[in-house]
Amino acid sequence: MSIIDELTAALGQAKVAVDETTMATYAVDQAPVLEFKLPQAVVRAESVADVQATVRACAAHGVALVARGAGTGVSGGAHATEGCVVLSLERMNRILALSPDDETAVVEPGVINGDLNAAAAVHGLMFAPDPASFRISTVGGNVATNAGGLRCAKYGVTRDSVLALDVVLADGSLIHTGHQTFKGVAGYDLTGLFVGSEGTLGIVVAVTVRLKYLPREVHTIAAFYPDFRSAAAGVLAVGKARVQPAIMELLDGGTLAQLDDLHGSNLSVRGASLLLIQTDGFGAAAEAAAIRTVLAAGGAVVTTEASAEAEHLVEMRRHSRGDEVDDEYRVGEDVAVPRSKLVDYVAALETMAAARHVRLKIVAHAGDGNLHPTFWVDRVDNTVDPDAMERLGKVLDESITAALAMGGTITGEHGIGQYKLRWLGLEQKEPVRELQRRIKELFDPAGILNPGKAV
Amino acid sequence: MSIIDELTAALGQAKVAVDETTMATYAVDQAPVLEFKLPQAVVRAESVADVQATVRACAAHGVALVARGAGTGVSGGAHATEGCVVLSLERMNRILALSPDDETAVVEPGVINGDLNAAAAVHGLMFAPDPASFRISTVGGNVATNAGGLRCAKYGVTRDSVLALDVVLADGSLIHTGHQTFKGVAGYDLTGLFVGSEGTLGIVVAVTVRLKYLPREVHTIAAFYPDFRSAAAGVLAVGKARVQPAIMELLDGGTLAQLDDLHGSNLSVRGASLLLIQTDGFGAAAEAAAIRTVLAAGGAVVTTEASAEAEHLVEMRRHSRGDEVDDEYRVGEDVAVPRSKLVDYVAALETMAAARHVRLKIVAHAGDGNLHPTFWVDRVDNTVDPDAMERLGKVLDESITAALAMGGTITGEHGIGQYKLRWLGLEQKEPVRELQRRIKELFDPAGILNPGKAV
Repeated sequence: MSIIDELTAALGQAKVAVDETTMATYAVDQAPVLEFKLPQAVVRAESVADVQATVRACAAHGVALVARGAGTGVSGGAHATEGCVVLSLERMNRILALSPDDETAVVEPGVINGDLNAAAAVHGLMFAPDPASFRISTVGGNVATNAGGLRCAKYGVTRDSVLALDVVLADGSLIHTGHQTFKGVAGYDLTGLFVGSEGTLGIVVAVTVRLKYLPREVHTIAAFYPDFRSAAAGVLAVGKARVQPAIMELLDGGTLAQLDDLHGSNLSVRGASLLLIQTDGFGAAAEAAAIRTVLAAGGAVVTTEASAEAEHLVEMRRHSRGDEVDDEYRVGEDVAVPRSKLVDYVAALETMAAARHVRLKIVAHAGDGNLHPTFWVDRVDNTVDPDAMERLGKVLDESITAALAMGGTITGEHGIGQYKLRWLGLEQKEPVRELQRRIKELFDPAGILNPGKAV
Repeated sequence: MSIIDELTAALGQAKVAVDETTMATYAVDQAPVLEFKLPQAVVRAESVADVQATVRACAAHGVALVARGAGTGVSGGAHATEGCVVLSLERMNRILALSPDDETAVVEPGVINGDLNAAAAVHGLMFAPDPASFRISTVGGNVATNAGGLRCAKYGVTRDSVLALDVVLADGSLIHTGHQTFKGVAGYDLTGLFVGSEGTLGIVVAVTVRLKYLPREVHTIAAFYPDFRSAAAGVLAVGKARVQPAIMELLDGGTLAQLDDLHGSNLSVRGASLLLIQTDGFGAAAEAAAIRTVLAAGGAVVTTEASAEAEHLVEMRRHSRGDEVDDEYRVGEDVAVPRSKLVDYVAALETMAAARHVRLKIVAHAGDGNLHPTFWVDRVDNTVDPDAMERLGKVLDESITAALAMGGTITGEHGIGQYKLRWLGLEQKEPVRELQRRIKELFDPAGILNPGKAV
C-alpha cells in the first residue's frame, strides 16, 4: 500500500489532501524559497491519534515529515522537502484547559496566539510571547521556533512561558515532558530541548503554558531623534537608568519613510530615527516619567504623556507583520548583538549596504539587542540588474559575520530553519554541532522529522 | 601509574588531597546520607585546564567523578560514590567579566552567589536566583541544580538567568554553548540541557549570566492569620488581584514556634500562620497597597506600612539556611503543586503527619506553589524509638504521592540528586526516563560523570 493510501485509510479522505493547489499552498512558509519542493501529501490532523498515525506511516515508508502550524515562519522551517508529507496542525486548535487560579493553560498546537491571549485576558492574564504574527501564528509554531516578540525583554521568550509538552516521537509514541507547576527540576530539561527544535525532534501535540498578569496600566512614549546613533544611545541610557520597559522598539529612517509611504504620515520629517517605548504594570507611570527625562536629556523630542499618537505608532509596529513578505529581492534578518554594540552594529550595516548599493532599513527589539534589518534591491519592470542578487547575498553574509564578530548570534528569535543553515557553522563550532546532530539521531534515528532543518 | 599519581603529576600536590579529613569533608553535601562513601581523592581545581586534566585522568582510569561547588545541595547530588574522585570547583571563583551596559557577567563556577550579587549591585544590577544558601552557595552549584529561591515567581529560576556555558565534556574536551545576547535560538538548547543536570552531562567551568535590575524600592508586608487555610487562601487572593510580588513566603505554626524558640520572638501568639510578601520596583508602593487591601479582606492582621518588623522577618526567612541541617531524623521536602492546590495539599500533610505521629512544619515559596515541609521525629538521649524511622519514611512517601496526585512535582528547586531518585519513577514514566538515560549515555558513554544521580 502506498503511503497516501495508508494515510487515507487511517485518517479518512477529508484529512489527506493530494491536490496541486493544496500542496502548493502548504509547500512553503513565509521565508525566502531557495528551491521550491512539493510535498506528496498534506495531512490536516485533528487529534493526537491522527498525528501518531501520520508519524507511523511516514516511519514505515521512510518518508520525511514536515510539521507546521500557520506557516508564518520566516526561516523556512516549514518549507517542504522533496517528496515529504506536510503535517498541518492548524485544526488542532482547542484550548483544552485554562485555570485562572493556577495561571496556566493547556492548548493544542494549532491554537492561534491571539486567541489564547483573548481567552486569558478575560481573567486578567496573558500569554506573554507576542511575535508580530500573533494574530495569525500558532502556539505550536511559537514553541517550534522559541518565538520572541516585542515584550520579551521584560516577559521572556516562548521557552519562559512553557511548562510542559505532549510530544509524539519519531516512532509514533506519545510522551509528556515537564511539570504543571511553575517550578520543577526533576530530570533533564526535555521541555527546553523540544522548544525551538523546529519539528526535528518530535511533534508537539499539546502545550502547557504559564500565563502572566495582564498589566492594567500601560504608558507609551515616542521619542524622535536627529540620527540613529543618538536613538541607540537612548536605549543604553534607559538601561543605565535601570528601568525595564515592556517594549523598546527602535526604527531607523528607512523604516519611517516606509511607514509614511504606507500610512501617509510625516514621521520622516520629524526625525531620522524613532524610539518607541512602553512601560506597563503598577509602576508604569513612574517608569515612563523616568524614561522621558533620560531620553530628553539625550536629545530626543519626546511625546507628551498619554499621547494617542505614540500608542498608534506602537500598534502600527506591533501589527506590521504581513505588510511585506520577503522574496528573492528582499530579505529580512534577525541577528542579535550585545546591547552595548547596537550603535556600532548599525553603523556597520549602513556602511556595508552603501558600499554594495543595497537598500536597508532597520527595526530592532532594542531592549534585547535583537535587530531586524531588511536588505533589498529595487526592481524595474519586476526585474533587477544582473549583479544585484550577488550584491544582496554579499551584504547578507557581511551582516552576519559582523554580528558574530561583535559577540552576536545569527538568529535572535526566528530560528535557523532551512534558510540560515548555511551560517550556523560560523556561530557554532563543529563539536557543538556534532553534539546536536547526535541528539537529533537519538530522537529520530531514521531522520524522517523535518530533515535538513535547524541543526 | 595510579590515578592519584597521575592527578598529582598533572596538577601538583597542592590541588590533590588524599588525607582522611579532607576526604570526609568533601564526601557529602547537606542532604541526608543514605550510605556514606569516601572518595579516593579530592581535587581542588584552579583552572579549566585543571578540570580537563582531572576529567581525562578519570576517563582513562574509568573512575567516577563527582563535581561540587560549596556542597550546600540538599539532595545528595554531590555525595561521593564508592572510590570516586571529588572535583571541587570552589577555587575557580573569579568574576571574569561584568558588563553594566550589556547587563551580563561571565563567572567561574565557584563564585559565591552573594559575591556576584555584591559586584552587580554596584551597577544597580542583580543576579536574580536567590536560594536561601546564597551567602555560601556557588553559581556553578546554582546552575547544576537549576536553583530557585525566594524571588523566582517574579524573576525566574537559574535557567532564566543563564545565557551561555563553558562545559568540559566527559572526554575532557571543552565546548561553549548558548549566546552572549539576551535572545538566541540557533540550534538546540544545550545550555538548558546542562542547567539542572547535576554534573551528570559535563562539568560547567564558566557561566554567562544575564543580570536584572536591582529594584530601588521595596515594600514588605507581614500578614498574620488565625489558621493556615486562610493564609493559603490569601496567596490565591493576591494572585486573583493580578499583583506579582517579588517574594511571597508562607510560614505555618510549626515554623513560627521554631522561630520563637530561636529568636525569642512571640510570633506564635500573634497567629497560627504568617504570609510574608515583598513587592519591588517602581510599582512597589501601589502593589503593596493593593495586597494589603486584599489580605485584610481575607481576615489577616496586616502590618502597617514601612514596618521594620516585616522587613526583619523577611531577612530572617531569607537567611534561614544553616539554622538546621537535615539528618536521619529530620528531612526537608521540596515538592511543588499547582497554586490552587496549596490549601488541600497542606491539609493532607497535616493529616498524614498526625496519623503517623511525625512532627511537621512548613514553609512555602507560595507564589510558586513550592513547599518545603520538614518532617522529624523527636530524639531522647540522641535516639528515637525503633519504629519512628519507619513512620518518618512512610510520611515522606505519602507526602510525595499526595503531591503527584494533585498534579505536582517531587522537586521544585532542590534537584533529584541521589536522595530523590527513588521517587522519580512515580513522576516520570519509563519512556521519558529512558530518553534521559540515553541522553546521559550520549554525553557520557562510560558513565563516569556523577553516576547514580539525577536521572
